[in-house]
Amino acid sequence: MNQVIETILQHRSIRRFTDQPLDREQVETIVKSAQAASTSSFIQAYSIIGVNDQKKKDKLAELAGNQAYVAANGHFFVFCADLHRHMVAADLESADVKDSIESTEKFMVALIDAALAAQNAAIAAESIGLGICYIGGIRNDLEAVKEVLKTPEHVIPLFGMAVGYPDQITDVKPRLPLEHVYMENEYQQDRELFESQLHEYNTTTAEYYRERTGGKREDTWTAQMAKMLGHKSRLYMKEFVENQKLNKK
Amino acid sequence: MNQVIETILQHRSIRRFTDQPLDREQVETIVKSAQAASTSSFIQAYSIIGVNDQKKKDKLAELAGNQAYVAANGHFFVFCADLHRHMVAADLESADVKDSIESTEKFMVALIDAALAAQNAAIAAESIGLGICYIGGIRNDLEAVKEVLKTPEHVIPLFGMAVGYPDQITDVKPRLPLEHVYMENEYQQDRELFESQLHEYNTTTAEYYRERTGGKREDTWTAQMAKMLGHKSRLYMKEFVENQKLNKK
Repeated sequence: MNQVIETILQHRSIRRFTDQPLDREQVETIVKSAQAASTSSFIQAYSIIGVNDQKKKDKLAELAGNQAYVAANGHFFVFCADLHRHMVAADLESADVKDSIESTEKFMVALIDAALAAQNAAIAAESIGLGICYIGGIRNDLEAVKEVLKTPEHVIPLFGMAVGYPDQITDVKPRLPLEHVYMENEYQQDRELFESQLHEYNTTTAEYYRERTGGKREDTWTAQMAKMLGHKSRLYMKEFVENQKLNKK
Repeated sequence: MNQVIETILQHRSIRRFTDQPLDREQVETIVKSAQAASTSSFIQAYSIIGVNDQKKKDKLAELAGNQAYVAANGHFFVFCADLHRHMVAADLESADVKDSIESTEKFMVALIDAALAAQNAAIAAESIGLGICYIGGIRNDLEAVKEVLKTPEHVIPLFGMAVGYPDQITDVKPRLPLEHVYMENEYQQDRELFESQLHEYNTTTAEYYRERTGGKREDTWTAQMAKMLGHKSRLYMKEFVENQKLNKK
């Protein structure tokens, strides 16, 4: 196994960091790594906002549901889907691109582009001994995040990434069975097999939680998902995204 | 620079492969690497369909706009946003999760999850000497792709990834200026600076194309984007996605 695959397979989220900030070179290495990712038709439809103003970090931590590690880390990045740049480019070229920019297709392109870049950033950071945690919590209240980061129309802050020197040891969480996630030639049509793989995974996750909590936590993946998805969270999103003039047509 | 960052920065898309197929171990290493990526609240909202049935590969190549390398490669993967699994999980738990599953928020989660996994797969493949190319072209006609791959409701095939042993040498394409993509504490408010960075990048891309084509291709990034976005492509996407009962509310 090479260093790359080792780094990838060793990933676990880190939620407590030492006080040591990232230096400029580390930040640039992480951003350059993000930029090296593939991008749909060269569109590069994302921006990365580094937040080091402590007041802003505190505010984002609060908005993300009081997650302390959003405020306390070595560096905090926000990855944004960004088609504003392309509106400006079209202006410079006197082109009408509104229908494209407002389409669900281009919204998807921007999300995918931003996520590909982010995962390169994550792997690069981990490869130099840093820990990372994705922060979806910033989507709790994007109106407020938009105000903090002053993002224009056609930009959606998607998630944060807290990066820093790890100050905790955490476990690698067991994933769904490979043969459940990976199919060949067609989607799994056998519902019984599909369900039995979920039951198998429930056994794995139940064991993981039992071991980790000394028997205190009893939980399975399907129960966890049913509970999480039972909450109607962030249902404002459709309207917010449309108000930014994306995903409209 | 370590091997991880070197692999990331050396990325270029490969569009011609030798005949050598990936072996089972390589495929599993790539899928396991994909699965190791972060996932929003442990949701793992994606599936990966490996396509090795040559008839299906040929069909997908045709649907993607006659891209030969979709049919001719070492292995072809399709990454799908997948919330079908969560509908099944909720059934097993007798939970009502419809509003969540159909929300724009969960659509975004599934896209991001799938893209994070895909980028891990890409980096893992490249680290073992393989080349890759993302294939957004499968989104030209997702109704037809859905038929080929037999994906159920709540699943969207997002993009393909052709993987194999490279049979060509390609260049690393210059990205947007780092200081344009990476901002600090707030989005760039200075429109003049923003535009001047795009002009600077136009110079870089024009040089890149001139050098690469012996002076034959004159093109800038803003012109390329204006042209590409001027085409109203894939405007069926909103309806298609909603018909799969995603991104509806």
